[in-house]
Amino acid sequence: MNMMVIPERSGTAFRLSAGKMLTVVDPKGEQVADLLAFNADDMDEAISSGRTLDYAETIRLTTGHRLYSNRSNAMLEIVEDTVGMHDFLLTPCSVDTFHHFYPGQPPHRGCFGNLAEALAPYGIEPDRIPVAFNCFMNVPIDGETGKLRVLPPISKAGDHITLRAEMDLVIGLTACSAPDSNGGSFKPIHYRIE
Amino acid sequence: MNMMVIPERSGTAFRLSAGKMLTVVDPKGEQVADLLAFNADDMDEAISSGRTLDYAETIRLTTGHRLYSNRSNAMLEIVEDTVGMHDFLLTPCSVDTFHHFYPGQPPHRGCFGNLAEALAPYGIEPDRIPVAFNCFMNVPIDGETGKLRVLPPISKAGDHITLRAEMDLVIGLTACSAPDSNGGSFKPIHYRIE
Repeated sequence: MNMMVIPERSGTAFRLSAGKMLTVVDPKGEQVADLLAFNADDMDEAISSGRTLDYAETIRLTTGHRLYSNRSNAMLEIVEDTVGMHDFLLTPCSVDTFHHFYPGQPPHRGCFGNLAEALAPYGIEPDRIPVAFNCFMNVPIDGETGKLRVLPPISKAGDHITLRAEMDLVIGLTACSAPDSNGGSFKPIHYRIE
Repeated sequence: MNMMVIPERSGTAFRLSAGKMLTVVDPKGEQVADLLAFNADDMDEAISSGRTLDYAETIRLTTGHRLYSNRSNAMLEIVEDTVGMHDFLLTPCSVDTFHHFYPGQPPHRGCFGNLAEALAPYGIEPDRIPVAFNCFMNVPIDGETGKLRVLPPISKAGDHITLRAEMDLVIGLTACSAPDSNGGSFKPIHYRIE
């Protein structure tokens, strides 16, 4: 299929059949894409940061790692990754996070609002949105103090991550709307299914 | 109220009204307690690791930090903490995690199974169990590589953490069943509501 475009500060949702490859591209560099996955046959099975980090024994997920569901089933496997720096600790930005981190700026519904709208046709309620796998998001942790920082992504124009579906999925995907995580500017995200 | 006992490898659930203080005690030392919280008036609002870590800007939560819900509301505030080392990255241990990490041992339903049973009377389904706030769980992260390890807790006999309810809650609480996170032995957890 052709490359699809997610315009800046927006999101989409689509089906991804088992065995298909999803490539998420950062076309301009320094742009985060929040990714969610649900079992297409049972939306109560959803991507789980806690299961994934437990099995991977690392917070730095890259080629060869699998993303697991709340039921401990593999949903996606990372098969190619030109960046190697993604976040799986933080929830999608929302009106509330804008009020918290950017009190002087007009609040945006953020990735949370964009995902909620895109996933609604699949019967997924906003309260079912878990911690997302945040492609290209750069959240280093100080091993001594535990403090985390949200820095500009290290991804360059054209960098990408490819994931293979291990079951039939509904995917939610955004071009992230938060200033800090995207180096201060909002850019599109591209994706392709093969 | 008197001190309550959660026997080894088991769990419980109870209501905690806004303003009440919950003290979780490790009576023998090196024992983890998985803690979940749900809005007592709307069980679709649940404790969220992702929101909490985002607002706290650290993975080392201790006195003064609040634990937030998926809707960005404060559910609990940590008001006393004699340990300062808790985990909020990993999901409750389950039959599946026992198969994964302890393939030679008889599998246990783990904190996940114990929480599912204890929360069922409140109408909370197993799929609604999120990442737990794992009191006393010692999960250091290497800031360079991202690798995490599950080490014995640093808590000594009598160490405790006290949390104040910021809304009416249903709490799930366990004495954790996994060997690695508890230094290889299974001990009770005590708790008190004031």
